This record gives sequence, C-alpha cells and structure tokens, in this order.
Amino acid sequence: MKMHILVASLLSIGMLAISVNTLANEPIQPIKPAKVDNADMVELGKMLFFDPRLSMSGFISCNSCHNLSMGGTDNLPSSIGHKWHQGPINAPTVLNSSMNLAQFWDGRAKDLKEQAGGPIANPGEMGSTHKIAVDVIQSIPQYRTYFEKAFGSDQVDIDRITTAIAAFEDTLVTPGSRFDKWLEGDKKALNQQELEGYALFKNSGCTGCHNGKAVGGALYQKFGVHHPYETKSKVEGRKAVTGKDTDLNVFKVPTLRNIELTYPYFHDGAVTSLEDAVRIMGKVQLDRDFNKKEIDSIVAFLKTLTGVQPEIKLPILPPSNNNTPKPVPF
Amino acid sequence: MKMHILVASLLSIGMLAISVNTLANEPIQPIKPAKVDNADMVELGKMLFFDPRLSMSGFISCNSCHNLSMGGTDNLPSSIGHKWHQGPINAPTVLNSSMNLAQFWDGRAKDLKEQAGGPIANPGEMGSTHKIAVDVIQSIPQYRTYFEKAFGSDQVDIDRITTAIAAFEDTLVTPGSRFDKWLEGDKKALNQQELEGYALFKNSGCTGCHNGKAVGGALYQKFGVHHPYETKSKVEGRKAVTGKDTDLNVFKVPTLRNIELTYPYFHDGAVTSLEDAVRIMGKVQLDRDFNKKEIDSIVAFLKTLTGVQPEIKLPILPPSNNNTPKPVPF
Repeated sequence: MKMHILVASLLSIGMLAISVNTLANEPIQPIKPAKVDNADMVELGKMLFFDPRLSMSGFISCNSCHNLSMGGTDNLPSSIGHKWHQGPINAPTVLNSSMNLAQFWDGRAKDLKEQAGGPIANPGEMGSTHKIAVDVIQSIPQYRTYFEKAFGSDQVDIDRITTAIAAFEDTLVTPGSRFDKWLEGDKKALNQQELEGYALFKNSGCTGCHNGKAVGGALYQKFGVHHPYETKSKVEGRKAVTGKDTDLNVFKVPTLRNIELTYPYFHDGAVTSLEDAVRIMGKVQLDRDFNKKEIDSIVAFLKTLTGVQPEIKLPILPPSNNNTPKPVPF
Repeated sequence: MKMHILVASLLSIGMLAISVNTLANEPIQPIKPAKVDNADMVELGKMLFFDPRLSMSGFISCNSCHNLSMGGTDNLPSSIGHKWHQGPINAPTVLNSSMNLAQFWDGRAKDLKEQAGGPIANPGEMGSTHKIAVDVIQSIPQYRTYFEKAFGSDQVDIDRITTAIAAFEDTLVTPGSRFDKWLEGDKKALNQQELEGYALFKNSGCTGCHNGKAVGGALYQKFGVHHPYETKSKVEGRKAVTGKDTDLNVFKVPTLRNIELTYPYFHDGAVTSLEDAVRIMGKVQLDRDFNKKEIDSIVAFLKTLTGVQPEIKLPILPPSNNNTPKPVPF
C-alpha cells in the first residue's frame, strides 16, 4: 500500500514536471483573466467606449468599429467613418489589444491610451475634435460624477477620457479558449486534426511571428517576406511612421486570438475566408504551398483560439442637457 | 387597546380605499415589468436586434437608431441610414413601444413585428432586402440552432426574424420611475414642484392625449390643433397612410416615458430642449402660453417619468462563415 502511494506520488511529480516543461516549451501562453484595480475607472471607460457623442455625428462610438458583439471588430474590409468615409485599413480587434507592443497596424500609437485619441479627432473616423469631445462630456453632470469617482476630481480632459477608455480596453481579454485549456493540461480539449494543425503551425514557422499570449502583436514583420502580397491598398505600414524604405509593407503582426471572429483578414481586409488567409500566409511569408489537408488542419487549430468573450452589461449613458454641444450629423 | 386597533384598522381600510380610488382616477397608470413567455425567442430577438448584418453595409443594426444605451433612440433630429442617408423623421424610442396602438409616427405598421421588417428593406435605412437578410442569418448554423430553440424548427424566414425581434422589443419596458412609485403610493417620491407640474399637466389638458401606461401612444392627434407647427419637414403624417386630407399633420401621440432621454423632440426632431417642447406644445395644441415657472414645473414632472432602463447583456453574435453573403458597405 505504502509502495503504491510512493509510486503514484513519484508518477504525479514526474507528470507534473513533464506538463510544466511542455508548457514552458510552447511558443504560445494561455491568457489570464483581467485584473481590475479601479472598477470605477473601468465603468467610466466602458461608458465612453459606447458613447457615440464622442463623434461629430453623435452616431459613431468606439464600439461601432470595435464591436464587442463581433470579436471586437466591424467585420468589414475597412471601416465606415464620418459621413460614410471609407477607411484605408482593416479595423484591428480591440480584444487582447493590451498585449500589443504598440497600436494600429503601423504601431504609430505607443499604447491604448494614445490610440483612443486618434479616431475621435480623425476626420474620416469619428470626425470630432478633442475639444468638442471634452466639451460634450464635461457638460453632463452625471459624467463628471463618474470622473470624480475614477480620478478623484471631476475635471474632464482628453487625457482622462483616453485613460478611462484604455482602462476598459485593458479588461477586454479572452481567456478560456480550447487551446488554452489544452495548454493548461486538458489534453482532451483538442482533437487530432487540431493537434496536427498546431504541430504544422509550429513546424512551418508560423510561430516565428505568431507567438506569446496573443499569438501575435509582439513584433513587426514585413508582409511579403518571400513573395509580394497583391493588394489594392496604398498604405505603407511602418514606413509611414519611421520614414525608412526598409519599413515599406512592414506591419505589426496581428493577434490570432479569436481569428474566427475577426474576418475579413489582413491589413486590407481583402480575404474573407480563413482557408485563403492561411494559404496566402504560407506562400508569401514562408514560401510554402500548403495542401488542402494542411490548410484545413491549421484552420481547425486556429478556431481553437476563440476565447470566452467579455461579458458586457450595456451601459446606460447619462443624457445630454441644454448645455451639451449638439451633434452635427449632416 | 382593542378600540385603538379597531380605529387603526378602519383608518387603514379607509386610506387603502382612498389610495386605490386615487390611482383609479389618475389618467396615467404605472408600468409593470415585462413577462417573458419564451426566453429563447427573446434571446434570439436580442441577437437580431444587435446584428448589423441585417443591413446591406453590415454596419447598421436596429440598435444603431434605437440605441438601448440612449433611451432607445439615436438622439439625432433624424436618423443616419445606409450610406449616410438622412432620414425624413425622428426615430421614435423602442422603449415601451409595445404599448403603442400602431408603429411609426404615422402608424403605418400595425405592430412591432410589422415595424421590424420596414427598416431592414428601406434603401435609406438598413438598405438590405428581406431575402438577403434571411440568406445571411440562414447561412449561420449557430443562428439556426437558436431558431430551433425558439420556434421548434431551424427554418429561417423574415416572418420569424421579425417575430423574434418583436418578442425582444416587448421586453423593453421601463417600470420603476419615480412617478410610478408615486402612483403606487409612495407619496414622497415626488417633490412639490413635480406635483405642481403634474397637476398643471392634467389641468391644462395634456393628459387628453398623453395618458395611459405609456403617457401617449394610444391615439392619433393633429399636431397643430390651435396654431400650425412651424417645420421644414415634408412628412404628412397619417395622410400618407389614409390618403385623407383631414389626416394631414396627424401623428401618433408619442410616449412621454423617458422623455428626458429621448431628445430631440417632435417628428422633425427640431426641438432640443424639453422646456421649448413644453412651451410649443402648450401653444400649438392648447392655445396656452405657459410662463417660465409653469414650464419648469411641467419639465420637472416629465423628468420623473424616466424609468429603470432595461438591463441588457450585450449578445455575442455567431460569426459569418464562407457561405454567408458578404456585406456591401461601399
């Protein structure tokens, strides 16, 4: 009996060591639930994220293009902005975006706070100005009460507005995917095809860029390493930020978390099926012609990266009043 | 002691009788919480209500113009539709809309189910067709599972889509306003100014049209009974439905529930302040010049009609797949 327990214990320790060792060697790490330090700040940020009054028209909110019902995206090739302006690039998901080394496809914003200020004042996105956005929010006493709770005083400025939005976005993580369950030791969480897809994903070199907790987002890479990517898009990627010719077509590697939800794919949003996306990535980045079986297995693996979506209680926004600047939709 | 109890009991009975009697004589009745018979149907309807894939662009959902963060409206004079089309009329609130005798300002839809089909196929609103909307939803297996649960089979058609949306909208009621608490016997729920406003609201004749549970919505009335309402709007009201000249400028009386949240006011959305709305209504409908104190008291009363807003957990929409018709935003 004692012998049995001893053997069992040794086996357990051995299995634990293998398990930990395996996980440590994986290029992808599981996502942990968000920790909330300042719940008032997050609640305020959620209200602002859903508030279309941050736009000139009163119609477009952060959630319009980063829709939390749809994987934190708009599922459009490029976004619809103020007066139906066609955006130049595919809207990246807001989910797990706090894990990105920088924000936007070209990394021109260093963090979510800096990012949040961009669309508000972009004439082709929300079409407002920081001054008008501040004037609108400041005019609403109930909002000022939330600022008081979150920041300790009721002052409203663009720095605080974007700080609160970023604090909310920090909570938009998606733990609990089947792949993360597998990483954490539930070996039945993936089926044979999915495991083969993951093995191929690693062996082919995909994890060279798509790694870490977000399965991407941690580095910049040229799109078109082996073959040029055919596109009608005029955007230049990192070159627009650094001015360097070598940064032409260099983009932040997008996260593959929830990739099943964040179609269409690539910076130009030109590819609607995940199968085509995998085939194209294999060719242009790895000079590899995946066959149908390989593509299907990688796609099967990628679909295991869909996590539990953030549970959002729709905020009730405090009403405008006679002092609130009016939206100008037309 | 016995005598005291007897007197107290008689007093209680007397007070109860007075209270019931008072309530019975009030022209406004309190709103009761929604009863849900088919929770699966309501959940499906909520998903469809929030799903922008019912529009041609993939960008506009029912919630875009009947925003449940903003009193079930878009807070714009008239709505923004497909390709930024400017709508001809102010979007009525979806809150408590099940209590309306008919839907739209001109009552051209007999109920919420009929209403829900309108914007989907209106070129200036969601810009799609019923066929495309059905094709989109039908292509998504997870949606078909919800139809199976709600209807007993997984068939998708426009009748079922609009039935489910209407079932969700039936739940969007707002009980618990301070005014309803007062109606239900909490005499401290209203202050002196609010009570004076309510008395004036009744005595002036406002309750001739704005009565019942929804404080409106139960009848049609000419806008401009005593004096014409000055407007740039070209809409004709009921005349567009009945063809009768006598129905020119006749509209469904809007609900005043949550009126603080559903600005701007009137069918043309031309009036942004509640004070102006009350002043104009007094003049054109009642030939009465309310003074500032009177207006302020009526506005104070109207603000007590804001109820507890529906608590909505944002739905997570099932993703499109390779068989789903693609949105055409541009």
